[in-house]
Amino acid sequence: MKSIPVTPVSGMRDFLPLDVAQRDHVIQCIRRVFELYGFLPMETPALERLSTLQGKYGEEGEQLMYKVLKRGAKLERARALEAGADALADMGLRYDLTVPLARLAAAHSGELLPVFKRYQIQPVYRAERPAKGRYREFLQCDVDIVGLESVDAEADVINAGVQILRALGFDKPDDFSIRLNHRGVLMGLLRTARVPKDLTASALVAIDKADKIGVEGVQRELVDRQLPPESVRTLMRFMAECGGEENRDSMLPRVAGLLAQDEAGQDGLADLRLLMELLDHGPAGSAVRLDPFLARGMGYYTGPIYEIQFPDLSSSGGGGGRYDELLGLFAGRRIPACGFSLGLERILLIMNQRHMFPPDLNRSAQVLVAQLERALSPYMHTVAHALRQAGLRADLFPAPGRLRQQFRYAEKRGIRLMVIAGASEAEAQEVSLRDLERGERIRLDRDQAAAQLHRWLNEAA
Amino acid sequence: MKSIPVTPVSGMRDFLPLDVAQRDHVIQCIRRVFELYGFLPMETPALERLSTLQGKYGEEGEQLMYKVLKRGAKLERARALEAGADALADMGLRYDLTVPLARLAAAHSGELLPVFKRYQIQPVYRAERPAKGRYREFLQCDVDIVGLESVDAEADVINAGVQILRALGFDKPDDFSIRLNHRGVLMGLLRTARVPKDLTASALVAIDKADKIGVEGVQRELVDRQLPPESVRTLMRFMAECGGEENRDSMLPRVAGLLAQDEAGQDGLADLRLLMELLDHGPAGSAVRLDPFLARGMGYYTGPIYEIQFPDLSSSGGGGGRYDELLGLFAGRRIPACGFSLGLERILLIMNQRHMFPPDLNRSAQVLVAQLERALSPYMHTVAHALRQAGLRADLFPAPGRLRQQFRYAEKRGIRLMVIAGASEAEAQEVSLRDLERGERIRLDRDQAAAQLHRWLNEAA
Repeated sequence: MKSIPVTPVSGMRDFLPLDVAQRDHVIQCIRRVFELYGFLPMETPALERLSTLQGKYGEEGEQLMYKVLKRGAKLERARALEAGADALADMGLRYDLTVPLARLAAAHSGELLPVFKRYQIQPVYRAERPAKGRYREFLQCDVDIVGLESVDAEADVINAGVQILRALGFDKPDDFSIRLNHRGVLMGLLRTARVPKDLTASALVAIDKADKIGVEGVQRELVDRQLPPESVRTLMRFMAECGGEENRDSMLPRVAGLLAQDEAGQDGLADLRLLMELLDHGPAGSAVRLDPFLARGMGYYTGPIYEIQFPDLSSSGGGGGRYDELLGLFAGRRIPACGFSLGLERILLIMNQRHMFPPDLNRSAQVLVAQLERALSPYMHTVAHALRQAGLRADLFPAPGRLRQQFRYAEKRGIRLMVIAGASEAEAQEVSLRDLERGERIRLDRDQAAAQLHRWLNEAA
Repeated sequence: MKSIPVTPVSGMRDFLPLDVAQRDHVIQCIRRVFELYGFLPMETPALERLSTLQGKYGEEGEQLMYKVLKRGAKLERARALEAGADALADMGLRYDLTVPLARLAAAHSGELLPVFKRYQIQPVYRAERPAKGRYREFLQCDVDIVGLESVDAEADVINAGVQILRALGFDKPDDFSIRLNHRGVLMGLLRTARVPKDLTASALVAIDKADKIGVEGVQRELVDRQLPPESVRTLMRFMAECGGEENRDSMLPRVAGLLAQDEAGQDGLADLRLLMELLDHGPAGSAVRLDPFLARGMGYYTGPIYEIQFPDLSSSGGGGGRYDELLGLFAGRRIPACGFSLGLERILLIMNQRHMFPPDLNRSAQVLVAQLERALSPYMHTVAHALRQAGLRADLFPAPGRLRQQFRYAEKRGIRLMVIAGASEAEAQEVSLRDLERGERIRLDRDQAAAQLHRWLNEAA
């Protein structure tokens, strides 16, 4: 028995009280802001049918998915057939929150309105190779507007995302930026650079790596991917022209110039222009940077795309875009949608590194009620009950014991206040209070204890 | 594609906004009360090693456990070996919160204090046959005091549980009761009735069913289970003597009389006597009923056991007990502990049936900001932003459109207030406000809109 490892399974984590408090602090902030924007929470099960999940996440996703073994007779039948490994499983663990949203939209089409705004904060599971800041169980936090084609939707989700970051304490201009692009603009630039159609997807993969491998790395990779040299040269020129932290007023006409021969690209740019104008009138405005070569990995985006960039993080802190062709998958009709996914685990990491959490997050007990002898236990239980009724977080010392032990108990748990009563106090219906931090003590009627303890707590604050 | 079913997998549920709001209401209440009692939150991963889970839940548990298929080369090796089905899986989904607590206590023994109080609210997974009120993914809510042998611990968890139920609205004397027993007392009664040692566990299973099959059913089952007729007769006499809603003052001496020849049973009764005295000085006192034949299913209990009973529910609404031999499983040393598990899904069910949720749970938008034409969009986005900054839940109509449509949008979503502006309002930096419920309207400076909307909202409340 002793040889069984007791750590959490690889890539997953136990959360102790302070971890939970930090996560909860961020989640509550997110919920509050999303609800200010009219988004409502929805949840889906941790398990989905394999048929729901398969074919949605590409080959890599398929391999990273946790699959659940069939049970009982079904498992035995599958084993007897010696079919592929997938025949052994019937369900998979939630891999993201978008495919479940597509299923939910179809399952509840009668209850849901044609346009709805939902947010969802739940863990997802991916069997990735564990690394610093990369987990196999991690919280995903998605907000989506379903059923709406106008860029007002993008403005809403981007504003909400920015508002959340500000509320979490990323409130200085340089704390983060929102890189913004449009799939139509990017495709227009590729078309203008005469990238052959069958190499477009491959070129996007290379361009998507710019953050990690730099512009020269992209160039090398484009060559490796067999793009015509002329296309590579043109793309490099475009990237140079559009690079750097540019003023939007000079960037927009420049991109428009590059797209002069591409109508679809110009349409995308017009979308972006309107979106940026709308964003100027909300919290996101000042944080938005146009980046015509932002690609975003997922193939399913059809319109504006955007990404949170923290200056001290090479990968994105979240992002999203419009994906008008994905959500109708299960409903069998087109359902336009756009969304934003906050990189919660990364945000938590940065907030920890920058010490951005309030100091009083840990909700441990404020008061310890001592117990000196068994005969007094009923009195001390009564006192503890009264303090809790008065809204004080009160721990009762586990069992009658020496006072010195009880001071140590309070100290180790960071409990600042103590309530002590011996026989004489109990007889007089009184208690002795101690403020361990400031060395104060007072004996008073037990009915007045809660008020005095509250007073001490407020004085320190 | 269309033939893929879109409902959640069998036994699991999608939660729409009102469902989430109800669950969240209960969870927040639970957290608040637990923290008043000095409990702190911890969490563990959804997946555990199979070796951690196996052998802990009995044969039935083993069958109900969801197992996760190995991946990649490991899976192929396992398949090639054609070993038992378990060789195909390496992890299992969280089946309860107690085994993970035992693992966590061992994994973090350096960080955790010798006595700690934790609560944990997370979904668990069991492949049970789905039935009304029985789910395959359901929230479990456990509170435990680890490292403490005194019955003060039991008093704490029972008081916290009762306080939660009261805070949720179960505040009338008949709303629920807490049945209380002690494993030592029950075993003493079996010994006194000369139940053969090797039939004790079997007899407990039968007695545990009393709620469902009645005393006569228990009698039949004891006979079926080959108990000596004399033992069955004695047990029936004991059950008759201890049955009914009895006064504790008459019940305690009667049970003591039955246990006159059993020292261990008397020790258990002494524990119960002290526990009940302590409980009398907290919120639980009046709800506690002594029930010397309460058995509780799990074999691992070693001391007091207790169960929430709702009058309109045949099965229990939660329960717990002392289990001093289980938690040290992974740590390799004895760790005494006692806990309480609230039957969250059942409590939610009853609260729904009894209409116990506050009417304003749904946090949908309070205000709809209309959009009449694209040229006014920036102005309307500015207005919406200001309202949100002022703490109002404000939805922006998806895109410029007819006013009539926008009224319908508000109506369908239960949004009571509207902000409308045409060109003349925008020019004057004004807006028109409507209270759709009371038919009021007013035009004012846009800076004053939030205050007026707040006023309307407060007036109705």
